[in-house]
Amino acid sequence: MPGKLQKKAADPVIAEDLADFKVGVDNVIFSVDTEQNRLLVLLVMRPESPFIGAWSLPGTLVRCGESLEDAAYRVLSEKIRVNNLYLEQLYTFGDPHRDPREAASAFGVRYLSVSYFALVRFADAELIADGVSGIAWYPLSRVPKLAFDHNQILTYGCQRLRNKLEYSPVAFDVLPEQFTLGDLYQLYMTVLGEDFSDYSNFRTRLLKLGFLQDTGHKTSRGAGRPASLYRFDPEAFEALKDKPMVFI
Amino acid sequence: MPGKLQKKAADPVIAEDLADFKVGVDNVIFSVDTEQNRLLVLLVMRPESPFIGAWSLPGTLVRCGESLEDAAYRVLSEKIRVNNLYLEQLYTFGDPHRDPREAASAFGVRYLSVSYFALVRFADAELIADGVSGIAWYPLSRVPKLAFDHNQILTYGCQRLRNKLEYSPVAFDVLPEQFTLGDLYQLYMTVLGEDFSDYSNFRTRLLKLGFLQDTGHKTSRGAGRPASLYRFDPEAFEALKDKPMVFI
Repeated sequence: MPGKLQKKAADPVIAEDLADFKVGVDNVIFSVDTEQNRLLVLLVMRPESPFIGAWSLPGTLVRCGESLEDAAYRVLSEKIRVNNLYLEQLYTFGDPHRDPREAASAFGVRYLSVSYFALVRFADAELIADGVSGIAWYPLSRVPKLAFDHNQILTYGCQRLRNKLEYSPVAFDVLPEQFTLGDLYQLYMTVLGEDFSDYSNFRTRLLKLGFLQDTGHKTSRGAGRPASLYRFDPEAFEALKDKPMVFI
Repeated sequence: MPGKLQKKAADPVIAEDLADFKVGVDNVIFSVDTEQNRLLVLLVMRPESPFIGAWSLPGTLVRCGESLEDAAYRVLSEKIRVNNLYLEQLYTFGDPHRDPREAASAFGVRYLSVSYFALVRFADAELIADGVSGIAWYPLSRVPKLAFDHNQILTYGCQRLRNKLEYSPVAFDVLPEQFTLGDLYQLYMTVLGEDFSDYSNFRTRLLKLGFLQDTGHKTSRGAGRPASLYRFDPEAFEALKDKPMVFI
């Protein structure tokens, strides 16, 4: 269509029409306190404006020459010591007006956030209190209003956590190396809610998947019968890992 | 630690250390030609530098005041006419040096890409040839070297497509309203490969899920027995949709 061609030629997008961005990374780091059956998320108190004094996900702005992941690992290395922290990308939030600094800037720069997700073993993680800003493992049920749109990012993180628990062996990154089926069930209940499955179905399904190895040891806690201790067998799982499966 | 505090005070991050970005959106749009059993991806030929004349995913740069999703829908509305195009975010690529314009810019501006994913019904989609740049449904098996890191983005898209087929009823967005179990099996084979499951297991599992409705009609194609035509029953699926499940 010549009309369309002409329109195209007459109406080029000029560089000034394009939005300018700073890019941040924000981390949703979950842990599970298996002894207290609490799902926890890592929060830091903001030491500066905007939202000074508010709790937020640990994040930072990406620097020149730095990859998104490197920025995410950089800010976490200042907040937490833990082995095998493996970040996976969660979601990108970049709509106009999500950051008050945008309005304050005379140049209309927008702030986009790429969020990352990780799950760490509670007993292995050590928070770094730098003496300047607050830091805490917050029980998910008590998370306050967070800075920016971080409550929304956290909601995405919770959804991802539930999906991963349903479709992947992520539970074994969080449990101690040896655990009872009751511990495993409790972890699922903590994340998915009390009524996700009854214990007997859960037990049958998990054992049938074939990668839980009975260690031969037993534990007795409280008044019940001694319970068998299991461990996750990564080799048995290896053969299955490309097959779609559900864990509950 | 006072030493740490002093270091913090003496070493503030200045705004010049932060990277400046333009943000693009790139769309991985799949379709399946069920008659030919081919998985297709929508590609456009770049009408301008960089990579002029190379095939690429349909994308654009985000404009002032525009959301990421709006930008993604805007560029698609110029390329394809289709009902019920539903984009879902795929992944964000933002490492240094992923775009040659970065090096060319005197100001070191980086280019980040937020990718989106959709699956459309082949018969319902109409490509818009604007007379300026090339556009094509490319069979996935024949995709050439694409502009930028678009082959990598496409690889992510393929992985997402396989996951969705395994864990969600996305197949029924692509098939005609009435289909045989053979059509459905063929679609899964086209995307997941020939050996993903044998037909008899696949058939049993899908029927057991309870949301395939026998229409009572039959079709006969080729030499085989007439095959029953099914349709997807969204109401039967509604009750299941929050439960984790696998489709194959």
